[in-house]
Amino acid sequence: MRPTLHAALAAALLATPVAAQIPDDARVRQALAYAARVRQALAYAARTEPRTIDEQVAICEIEAPPFKEARRAADFRRRMEAAGLRNVRIDSVGNVIGERPGEPGQPVIVVSGHLDTVFPEGTDVRVRREGTLLRGPGIGDDCRGLAVLLAVARALDDAQIRTRGTVLFVGTVGEEGAGNLRGVRHLFETELRGRVTHFISVDDTGFEMTKDAVGSYRYRVAYKGPGGHSYSDFGVPNPVHALGRAIARIADLQVPAEPKVTFSVGVVEGGTSVNAIAAEASMLVDMRSVAPAALDSLDRRFHAAVRQALDDENARWPASPVRLTVDVERTGTRPAGTQPADAPIVRAALAAGRRLGIEPHLTPSSTDANIPISLGIPSLTIGAGGKGEGAHSLAETWDSQGSEKGTQWVLLLVLGLAGVR
Amino acid sequence: MRPTLHAALAAALLATPVAAQIPDDARVRQALAYAARVRQALAYAARTEPRTIDEQVAICEIEAPPFKEARRAADFRRRMEAAGLRNVRIDSVGNVIGERPGEPGQPVIVVSGHLDTVFPEGTDVRVRREGTLLRGPGIGDDCRGLAVLLAVARALDDAQIRTRGTVLFVGTVGEEGAGNLRGVRHLFETELRGRVTHFISVDDTGFEMTKDAVGSYRYRVAYKGPGGHSYSDFGVPNPVHALGRAIARIADLQVPAEPKVTFSVGVVEGGTSVNAIAAEASMLVDMRSVAPAALDSLDRRFHAAVRQALDDENARWPASPVRLTVDVERTGTRPAGTQPADAPIVRAALAAGRRLGIEPHLTPSSTDANIPISLGIPSLTIGAGGKGEGAHSLAETWDSQGSEKGTQWVLLLVLGLAGVR
Repeated sequence: MRPTLHAALAAALLATPVAAQIPDDARVRQALAYAARVRQALAYAARTEPRTIDEQVAICEIEAPPFKEARRAADFRRRMEAAGLRNVRIDSVGNVIGERPGEPGQPVIVVSGHLDTVFPEGTDVRVRREGTLLRGPGIGDDCRGLAVLLAVARALDDAQIRTRGTVLFVGTVGEEGAGNLRGVRHLFETELRGRVTHFISVDDTGFEMTKDAVGSYRYRVAYKGPGGHSYSDFGVPNPVHALGRAIARIADLQVPAEPKVTFSVGVVEGGTSVNAIAAEASMLVDMRSVAPAALDSLDRRFHAAVRQALDDENARWPASPVRLTVDVERTGTRPAGTQPADAPIVRAALAAGRRLGIEPHLTPSSTDANIPISLGIPSLTIGAGGKGEGAHSLAETWDSQGSEKGTQWVLLLVLGLAGVR
Repeated sequence: MRPTLHAALAAALLATPVAAQIPDDARVRQALAYAARVRQALAYAARTEPRTIDEQVAICEIEAPPFKEARRAADFRRRMEAAGLRNVRIDSVGNVIGERPGEPGQPVIVVSGHLDTVFPEGTDVRVRREGTLLRGPGIGDDCRGLAVLLAVARALDDAQIRTRGTVLFVGTVGEEGAGNLRGVRHLFETELRGRVTHFISVDDTGFEMTKDAVGSYRYRVAYKGPGGHSYSDFGVPNPVHALGRAIARIADLQVPAEPKVTFSVGVVEGGTSVNAIAAEASMLVDMRSVAPAALDSLDRRFHAAVRQALDDENARWPASPVRLTVDVERTGTRPAGTQPADAPIVRAALAAGRRLGIEPHLTPSSTDANIPISLGIPSLTIGAGGKGEGAHSLAETWDSQGSEKGTQWVLLLVLGLAGVR
């Protein structure tokens, strides 16, 4: 289904003064009839922002370590129900889904935040407030996004707005690191397969906006052999030496500046003693780009480098009966993808921002939106307002000054995509 | 002073039957006069071997972790005094030294064992006996050597043997690993500087014999930079990549087969996260040879490789303001050296072995003897009998079957070098 576009609606609604920019469009006339209600929803969002922040804190004080989001998910399910969403459920991988139904045949918009944090079990997740500043691990990334989803649902209800499209509110699992986007993957592969026409991830803070998905391949590569003594067993292939050869080849890989393609050996480890030939030496490798073809080209050359290093180290000691082996394990895949700068969903988000005096800052990133972007589904990741610092660190903070604009931005964008009836 | 050689004495003493092989030599005639006493000493060593083993166990049950040999040293001092040695003392680095004086102007023989183990503080060092098998960390390496020193001193006293040369019994500190031979170094640089004519290290078990000192240089090399994010900071030199370049160069260094020269990058570590450019990446490197010139040649090429890798990684990113640095720390130096296969001290040890039915096995190794060998002082490291397994592991065992031959071998070699009067 080609998604119906309601971006013009939002743009019209948000222009000031509205009357001066009315296109000759039935949808816009209809929209104007609803302008008062939309304004009411925006006002509600601003007025109840303190409650939204309280909810942000309450969510944040429930731990949600990687792969252990269940407690926060159960709580979020109750909060979705309290916010008036329908058919609230937790799917088979742990995503929380609540619905605000629209008309049949109209767009289906997913607006999501992610439940998981990067923090391990046992982290002190209590939130401390100092004026407008909140301190707590995860307070911005992504307790803010989760709280905004609930605020948007309540604002729509308060203003009695009915949308043409269906809006699905989702708290996803597995956005961070090793989670490898398993929550959002499940949505598009199984749970909501073929239904979703637009996807918005409300992730992190400020007014950042991502239309281009930085894809990544991650690997663990381990060279292995029998090991031995550095002196008495000298003359056999050495796994650390093979690893070094691989890294040296990777270090010299050539990549284009545009589209940006990156590679990094982030972690190396191997060996237990200066005077022993290690039995194993390994590295963690990260490769990224927004361009799938460029990423795949790099990936092929990476594999060739890993293999050549093995062959070179084995060939260095032709008389040795020892032959090293290499294990290459792909530990993460985030698909890449780009969208045009003038894609309707991008224009809608910029228009909504302009109405609120927001200047969104476009940055390629790696988020839940990678999955739908790679599938060609119009998608964005946008910040949820306020000012975050130190995401992924225990010292994470979030300043709520002006944060209601974040809530309003999400509200307007959802309305623009779903359409009002 | 050119050391006086008394090896012929031992050879003569040990031939069977003695009368059939008497060279026309005043010293040998003199020796024959003492043959009965020497035989008495050998018999005493055999008869009291159970006591020697008890002492080996008692020594071993006192912990002696690296750099923390003091408790075992204090105990060993008391044992030396009880064995009748004179002027027993602990020097400024912790070596225990006891004397058996000879005549002025005659050889000065050091016979030593090492006090330290590789085991950290808190290791369970209790020894369990199962028939002739003893289980305990350090039981062979080198509690056996220490116990044999005491047995030799007692056997000489029991047989009322006076030697021409002075015999210095020494328990050294710092033989293992990071100890970097600091005990024996101190002996030859300070404590006994210029006095010692022969050096015997009684180290480990069996009838191994080392005349060639495997020298080693050990390094920790660390490449450093500011680090950063693998995607957003891409385009700067990467310390892990510099490390890989260095290892790849080291892996291709060419070395001769004879004299044997070896190199190994034993340990690599760096980085904390797959998606971060590490701030530091390091390696531990071990290079060895019995040939000082070959080792120094390798060392120069190693340093060049480390430097070239830094330059190459920095040059890979000419537009980056980031420049990596490298720290090269030498963490260990053991000087190399060789002695002729027919050196008098080697012949003396082989002759003593033959008398006892021992077939010593010659192996280059890295031991306390490295220091005197590198100074041109006739020196050996020899095993102390019995059969050890799993040295440097918690599962170390030592089987005492026939171990009295180890005690006798040391006794005869010392007599051969010191001469009897």
